[in-house]
Amino acid sequence: MNPRSLALPLLALALAGSSLRAEEGMWTFDNLPTKKIQAGYGWAPDQAWLDHVRLSSLRFPGGSGSFVSKDGLVLTNHHVGRGWIQRVSSKEADYVQNGFAAATREQEIKVPGLELMTLMAMENITDRLAKAVKAGTPEKLALKQRETEIEKIKKEMQEKSGLTCEHVTLYQGGEHWIYSYKKHTDVRLVFAPEQQIAFFGGDPDNFTFPRHNLDFSLFRVYENGKPYQPKDFLHWTQTGLKAGDLTFVTGHPGRTNRQDTVAQMEFSADFAIPMRLKAYERRKAAMVEYAKTSPEAARQVNTQIFGIENGIKATTGYWAGLKDKDAMARIRAAEKDLRAKVAKDAKLTAEAGQSWAKIEAATKVAKDLAKDALNVGTANSTLLGYALGLVRIADEEALPSEKRLPEYSDANLKTAKARMGVPAPFYKEQEVFMFTKGLEEAAKELGPQHKFVKAMLGGKSPAEVAKAAVDGSKLNDPELRKKQEDQVASVITEHGTRIAKARFAVYGKNTYPDATFTLRLSYGAVAEYKANGTLIQPFTTFGGLFDRYDGWGGNAAKAHNGAWTLPQRWVDKRGALDASLPFNFAHKVDIIGGNSGSPVIDKKGELVGLIFDGNIESLPGNYFYDEAVNRGVSVDARAITHALDKVYGATALVAELTGK
Amino acid sequence: MNPRSLALPLLALALAGSSLRAEEGMWTFDNLPTKKIQAGYGWAPDQAWLDHVRLSSLRFPGGSGSFVSKDGLVLTNHHVGRGWIQRVSSKEADYVQNGFAAATREQEIKVPGLELMTLMAMENITDRLAKAVKAGTPEKLALKQRETEIEKIKKEMQEKSGLTCEHVTLYQGGEHWIYSYKKHTDVRLVFAPEQQIAFFGGDPDNFTFPRHNLDFSLFRVYENGKPYQPKDFLHWTQTGLKAGDLTFVTGHPGRTNRQDTVAQMEFSADFAIPMRLKAYERRKAAMVEYAKTSPEAARQVNTQIFGIENGIKATTGYWAGLKDKDAMARIRAAEKDLRAKVAKDAKLTAEAGQSWAKIEAATKVAKDLAKDALNVGTANSTLLGYALGLVRIADEEALPSEKRLPEYSDANLKTAKARMGVPAPFYKEQEVFMFTKGLEEAAKELGPQHKFVKAMLGGKSPAEVAKAAVDGSKLNDPELRKKQEDQVASVITEHGTRIAKARFAVYGKNTYPDATFTLRLSYGAVAEYKANGTLIQPFTTFGGLFDRYDGWGGNAAKAHNGAWTLPQRWVDKRGALDASLPFNFAHKVDIIGGNSGSPVIDKKGELVGLIFDGNIESLPGNYFYDEAVNRGVSVDARAITHALDKVYGATALVAELTGK
Repeated sequence: MNPRSLALPLLALALAGSSLRAEEGMWTFDNLPTKKIQAGYGWAPDQAWLDHVRLSSLRFPGGSGSFVSKDGLVLTNHHVGRGWIQRVSSKEADYVQNGFAAATREQEIKVPGLELMTLMAMENITDRLAKAVKAGTPEKLALKQRETEIEKIKKEMQEKSGLTCEHVTLYQGGEHWIYSYKKHTDVRLVFAPEQQIAFFGGDPDNFTFPRHNLDFSLFRVYENGKPYQPKDFLHWTQTGLKAGDLTFVTGHPGRTNRQDTVAQMEFSADFAIPMRLKAYERRKAAMVEYAKTSPEAARQVNTQIFGIENGIKATTGYWAGLKDKDAMARIRAAEKDLRAKVAKDAKLTAEAGQSWAKIEAATKVAKDLAKDALNVGTANSTLLGYALGLVRIADEEALPSEKRLPEYSDANLKTAKARMGVPAPFYKEQEVFMFTKGLEEAAKELGPQHKFVKAMLGGKSPAEVAKAAVDGSKLNDPELRKKQEDQVASVITEHGTRIAKARFAVYGKNTYPDATFTLRLSYGAVAEYKANGTLIQPFTTFGGLFDRYDGWGGNAAKAHNGAWTLPQRWVDKRGALDASLPFNFAHKVDIIGGNSGSPVIDKKGELVGLIFDGNIESLPGNYFYDEAVNRGVSVDARAITHALDKVYGATALVAELTGK
Repeated sequence: MNPRSLALPLLALALAGSSLRAEEGMWTFDNLPTKKIQAGYGWAPDQAWLDHVRLSSLRFPGGSGSFVSKDGLVLTNHHVGRGWIQRVSSKEADYVQNGFAAATREQEIKVPGLELMTLMAMENITDRLAKAVKAGTPEKLALKQRETEIEKIKKEMQEKSGLTCEHVTLYQGGEHWIYSYKKHTDVRLVFAPEQQIAFFGGDPDNFTFPRHNLDFSLFRVYENGKPYQPKDFLHWTQTGLKAGDLTFVTGHPGRTNRQDTVAQMEFSADFAIPMRLKAYERRKAAMVEYAKTSPEAARQVNTQIFGIENGIKATTGYWAGLKDKDAMARIRAAEKDLRAKVAKDAKLTAEAGQSWAKIEAATKVAKDLAKDALNVGTANSTLLGYALGLVRIADEEALPSEKRLPEYSDANLKTAKARMGVPAPFYKEQEVFMFTKGLEEAAKELGPQHKFVKAMLGGKSPAEVAKAAVDGSKLNDPELRKKQEDQVASVITEHGTRIAKARFAVYGKNTYPDATFTLRLSYGAVAEYKANGTLIQPFTTFGGLFDRYDGWGGNAAKAHNGAWTLPQRWVDKRGALDASLPFNFAHKVDIIGGNSGSPVIDKKGELVGLIFDGNIESLPGNYFYDEAVNRGVSVDARAITHALDKVYGATALVAELTGK
């Protein structure tokens, strides 16, 4: 952190700010583009509004949520809650498939391990941290002094407030904060619809719009055995939204690659992504081949093939962003602008002047190592991947949080561990088959003299080795991993950070920091967009849900593994539903994975919807935001209460949510 | 025509046939790929079935239709009938906007000028024509002798049958036929829904699917003042279709460019289409600028701007085809195969060996002339385009039909003339504005010394010239047109024909001839396809119609010029409609402009639907057929009778159609 960077001329800030796209930004609560919101929508939040929605928002493991009643009801997505619903299910009571509704508070089921967090306070400790290190202190010592100071501050604050304090690095070190959370550890399952209506349209519709997913679940926070009464919670809308209405989203975007250098993006576009797609296709082809071996084999891999196709869909979406000429031209221009500004400043040049070239060189090394990385290792086997994952968790846990891979940070480690505790079913024959395929491919791609191939095969056939490996061994190639770490990962981390610091020095807080799975606010209007040769309507309806159901031939046809089938109760209650009522909607909000379960809030601060996905055009959001076509996709609040009322007869819940 | 060509080895035919895509083909009724249909669908039509559907089919000016009752009811699209409905409308009774329903047969309105044709018989005169010319006759004399023979045959047959006989050239001269039509000249309007439900979704939804257009109208043929009772008519389905069902389409595809050489396609892809898109954008920009001059100006050009956007959409769709690498690779391979076969045959080499090179050279000339062609002439002015159109009709009418441009052939001339008789409204100020813009652009692009610019401006300003021109003058550049004719059009016609004849010599009738606006049959299943990141359902429903209506905010919001609004009667009758009933559907049939109004027929020979469009992915069909995504889009027969019954209370019509 370079404190000098905070004192740059205002002009540079203003110029930089103007280059942001209209609704772009995952803003921290201390730094909202209020003027821009005001200019665009004739209204902007004040401090009371912001405090209210922040204190109503919740962090889930890997997702987001919000308080929606005075008695501590919590709203999130079904797919955020799914793992936890699974956890409290049994073979006899499959709440994921059949749904769950607590008829009384006594029936609400405590979910072991589930912890929710409210962000109670944020304190900027950048200056204090800077003062903790005397000028001229050697970097290694300075690092240690800063770490000691952070721990000291955390401890102080934790003792004072009784809250859970976390150190948050924004702008890659441009700012340091302590975020203080109230942690809720008694969380109970209240309501979940059937998976089939929550995920209507299944894998084919995933990442798309128009959409018809009732992707919500309800939990309740308890304290001392009684429903918790939060000071702040979101009141349920009495009016709902219409096209053009301004919406806000509070939640925890996990990670973006928007600060990648052009060289990194080109590496991704020209090499890494095509390679990943090739790996997907290879894995899919092997599974399709395995599926042909027996009906049971087909049954085992059916869902996995769909999963791979979704991976292909998502990756192709990211790729589309990198192939968008206009967007890439903007990104190139922005990089050019930053490099020119760095070049004009001797101190910045000393720090980051070489960093773009260093990163570019690292991508070249990555390219050389990639073939190995693709072929050495788990070779498509779930079981081996799982085993290596456990090893990885142990390795990562030994490191301080900031040194770990992002998916093993403090915020994510618990989820990662929890996930490992519930492994997907695996089938030994499938593992052997997949691993054999992987070894055969590796032998073909790398040649028989390659170290990995020799070590793995050791004169045996791929099938023999695979069987032995699946039967118990543990695989890895420490040398390759070390090379990757030394020559690629560490270079990119080091110089990525230098560039980010330079960017913060030049542009300051006129922009938003990279996603860090901490609370952010995005905003924008309910809006149509162009796709599929026409304009896409901003709202879908209950009528549209049944149009999909009917258009695919209903439960009788069971097209595409029943992707567009409905729980019988929905078919039975169809006549009681209001076909014209909104079901899902699309809006211009800058979100990404981790925002799942985020409340959608209107100007009044009321709950009007629930983020659960983005459209296919939002996938390039990993690299840049394009307000012309990037849309968040949400469940309309009205759909939730209407379904609770008419399909599930959950009148007490509706009354609690709406106050009626 | 080279009779020798009919005697090629069977092997070549078999190989060529196998390269056709699954459901590809606009087949003539004498030459159906029966084995392929049988192999693909386990059923194929027999002669009685074919005769029945042929005799039930009708040719409309510029479109298609069919007999659907024993009392001569005729079904076609609303958009095929629209010009005629307009013709019998008045300011007081706008049947296009408000719809029309004859309560009794007496109320059915005679449509002046509307003639429908039934194809009663087809006779192959290829051999007879060949015999009419002695071997060794000089080509010019031979041409004359053939023409005389054709006229003689037509006269003979016309006298014998009392039918209207037309000479049809298939496979660019590979075959000659006489098609004999029964002409129906007393045609009356029976029913038309409101334009807004016939064209629901308007210009935005045009060329797309999922779709919700009730795009039908009903006429009745009379003879001697009484309803005509056709021997053959299509019985209305009692069961309807489901996904996977085989459908047939009979109709009159107008024109395809599938036989273009690779050089022509590359010229289109790299030059002609980008140029056309640029012209569209220029025209749109000028209109947008004009629209800013006053609210009245905006009103005038609003629809025209939408029209241009649709032109851009269609052209971009064709372009997408030419940019499809897999498809272009297939086209290149097919051309390579044909050229290799031509090279192995001395006679074919003599006739067509140079033709690919000649066409390629002509496209180079076209490129040189194109800048002039774009800038010289009507310069965006509707009025001048109209004036020049009248001149063109006179020029073309003087030529024998086969020498005319396709849109002025015998089949199309009447429509072309009829259309000119009903000019769109034009506004002098707009004309002057658009023409001024065109002249300014031309002066900029061509430079002040260019002959056209000098001649047009002659020292005056573009505005002065435009005003004078719109006030009365007539513009053209005979020299440019002559150059284009001599060096481009005639070369492409001549050598295109030579290649086509060589193709027929090599592959014979194992493929289908280019579209010629004569009766053809296409076939294929009701089927989903991949688009917009997911799978698109094969059927839409009445519920889906209202989902669009609601999703866009209904008649109150009137989004996008009311594209998704509904006639009030539809809103009022909503409760009486079956939401789950199919409305439109998508199927794998190879169709193109001219097929509008074609009946969709099932295996039983019953009417199950009505072609009205293709999806956006069907636009490359101009160049090739891609069964993976190319879909015809049809009104479901059940939607027509359900709407007639429940919305319009037209119970007598429903009874006549369904026999109930």
